[in-house]
Amino acid sequence: MPKDQTGLRSWLAAANEEGCDFPIQNLPYGVFSVGDAAPTCGVAIGDRIVDLAACEARGLLEADGTFSAPQLNDFIALGRPRWEAVRARLTALLAEDGDRDLPTVAMSAARLHLPIRVSEFTDFYASRNHAFNVGVLFRGPENALPPQWTHMPIGYNGRASSVVVSGTPIRRPMGQVRGEAGPEWTACRRLDLELELGAIVGADSVMGQRIGVDEAEGMIFGYVLLNDWSARDIQAWEYQPLGPFQSKALGTTIGPWIVTQAALEPFRCAGAPRDNEILPYLREERPGFYDLTIGWTMNGQQMCRTNYNVMYWSSAQQIAHHGVSGCPMRVGDLLGSGTISGPAPDQTGALLEMTEGGKRPVMVHGEPRSFIEDGDEIGLYAHAQGQGYRIGFGPCTGRILPATDDRPA
Amino acid sequence: MPKDQTGLRSWLAAANEEGCDFPIQNLPYGVFSVGDAAPTCGVAIGDRIVDLAACEARGLLEADGTFSAPQLNDFIALGRPRWEAVRARLTALLAEDGDRDLPTVAMSAARLHLPIRVSEFTDFYASRNHAFNVGVLFRGPENALPPQWTHMPIGYNGRASSVVVSGTPIRRPMGQVRGEAGPEWTACRRLDLELELGAIVGADSVMGQRIGVDEAEGMIFGYVLLNDWSARDIQAWEYQPLGPFQSKALGTTIGPWIVTQAALEPFRCAGAPRDNEILPYLREERPGFYDLTIGWTMNGQQMCRTNYNVMYWSSAQQIAHHGVSGCPMRVGDLLGSGTISGPAPDQTGALLEMTEGGKRPVMVHGEPRSFIEDGDEIGLYAHAQGQGYRIGFGPCTGRILPATDDRPA
Repeated sequence: MPKDQTGLRSWLAAANEEGCDFPIQNLPYGVFSVGDAAPTCGVAIGDRIVDLAACEARGLLEADGTFSAPQLNDFIALGRPRWEAVRARLTALLAEDGDRDLPTVAMSAARLHLPIRVSEFTDFYASRNHAFNVGVLFRGPENALPPQWTHMPIGYNGRASSVVVSGTPIRRPMGQVRGEAGPEWTACRRLDLELELGAIVGADSVMGQRIGVDEAEGMIFGYVLLNDWSARDIQAWEYQPLGPFQSKALGTTIGPWIVTQAALEPFRCAGAPRDNEILPYLREERPGFYDLTIGWTMNGQQMCRTNYNVMYWSSAQQIAHHGVSGCPMRVGDLLGSGTISGPAPDQTGALLEMTEGGKRPVMVHGEPRSFIEDGDEIGLYAHAQGQGYRIGFGPCTGRILPATDDRPA
Repeated sequence: MPKDQTGLRSWLAAANEEGCDFPIQNLPYGVFSVGDAAPTCGVAIGDRIVDLAACEARGLLEADGTFSAPQLNDFIALGRPRWEAVRARLTALLAEDGDRDLPTVAMSAARLHLPIRVSEFTDFYASRNHAFNVGVLFRGPENALPPQWTHMPIGYNGRASSVVVSGTPIRRPMGQVRGEAGPEWTACRRLDLELELGAIVGADSVMGQRIGVDEAEGMIFGYVLLNDWSARDIQAWEYQPLGPFQSKALGTTIGPWIVTQAALEPFRCAGAPRDNEILPYLREERPGFYDLTIGWTMNGQQMCRTNYNVMYWSSAQQIAHHGVSGCPMRVGDLLGSGTISGPAPDQTGALLEMTEGGKRPVMVHGEPRSFIEDGDEIGLYAHAQGQGYRIGFGPCTGRILPATDDRPA
């Protein structure tokens, strides 16, 4: 367990301000560039970014060159002892009696990039409220919750190539939907978001060998905000029997900052109560959830506020299940938690649920919304509230561009 | 269209022998090593491998260094003009009036490696016979063929980290299956193969832009044999509603040799007749199938012989559909055709179909088999028969190791 960091303050005043996402207790990792310089690795503090490659160059951090890369995979692959050493060193450098000459850049002057090269992307389905609500809409109340749902963290492999960083515009997709007489070719009419937390795998596993839940917990480097954009009309037509495919491939937006497991440790808590016993390979020694406020906005208006602790399956359980067949995990694998939804409509992580499949539009700045319109911007946020500080994730936004169809159809 | 290569012969006698998979008309790419040397790229000819890195070093091929890599991705990324130039040059060097001092190694002395670093793996479901047969077993005859099946090439994202090269042993997986009262923890009891052809994507596409079918055809570098090992009992319990997951993640075996699109060009033909009109984005200018005999063996016994021309959706159509939402494709993406099954039992690409879900065991060397037993070896083969030569894929084998469960369950 980490030592208690309550009361710790930085020489950087902005880091100590109330409501700041990036106090000295956080130190999330990202990749940034300034001007035409190549992207390199950094850590957010207050309103600035610690330039980790420059720290290496000046001998402030042990130099292994991994921070000069345009993604964090090489650093993450060094493993937990190195993660802990760098965190301890940065904490010392940023503390009130630290090094005020530390190389930093203003966050406002930096461009943020995808923090990792995503090895593979898997999306789970671990909120009971979400699974039930969506199940009712797709299959009716009798078949809403699949029979295996309380026995295993079900998920599907998503597409890594369409994972983009916060701020990247997302194009409304074209596709097939169910029409009166066969399929219809159309721009998506039921475009949705999914509010999720993404876990980043920080260690490889061996093919043919399962992963224990506790071992899985130790393989997690950190978490990002994740919006799994979803084309609900395309999904309804395509998804049986092989699962969602193009309805989920238009783009997945992740936040630029990886909040480490170490920073979230003080907020560890239990998740949703279990309906039934689970098989031993999924049983956790200690709870794998966090008391983390999470929500989303549309065009700046608050739409949903819920908590990650409503989830039924933790990231460690998801990793243990992902490897149960002997499937190897890799550094840089990204695992979406599944949409995070509480029980009330203003706690739902997708418009599909919030509007009951579009039947009950919600008002956004005085305009009705059943699904996302062109030009709408969705923002995700999350933070864990400590005593006198909060661990935040920074913004995770994406704006929808109109569909284009420059090919004959 | 390539010039007619019928009648072309090599100075390497073994390449001209009847039934040889690797005549001068083929020239498939792979990655090999000898002794403790690092893996590099090669081309199969007769019973030998052309050492492409050595050819570069000797000035026999234009040197760009890509053939010294331990995978073909860098070469493939150079694009079609380079593919064509190297093929033309190798054809000249290997022809009867070619260069008899070409650096080659005996195939028997070489170890073959995964030919590409798999970017992402997608598995389709494009044989009508297979989709119907499996649909009957999983969902009954009324719901056998999903309603969208004749309108789009349905597929799911698989796991790239568990793709291995021919010869790699495959561990029987542990997992959850449906039991009398809830889930049961067990070693897989219904382990199966899937006979497929894998297309290798040779060009990136741009996120947010669709890919035309003809453009998609031009993005294909070549094909490998592909066995998508499947745990049917795990699949039946897990696969609704998000599709197959751990049942398909125990391993996917691919052949060591990538047979190029150029080598298969003379065998291009139509696929299965269509039930209905398809949307324009999936319509092909010219047929995207090949007259390619393909089959599998168990412990050396011939079990199935069918043809790739039974398929309903081509790789080009699958790529066009894969990108319809704007999802970008990447060099090194591997697309499984889906199980290739003809109409008769001895033309089926999976035991699930051949034995009607295990109800009608088949005899293998006098022993009954419903599914794959520990120690069984599955081999895939494929070849296109030309006049006086054949384009073969070489072996694609995998043997099943017993399940281990070294953790308490």
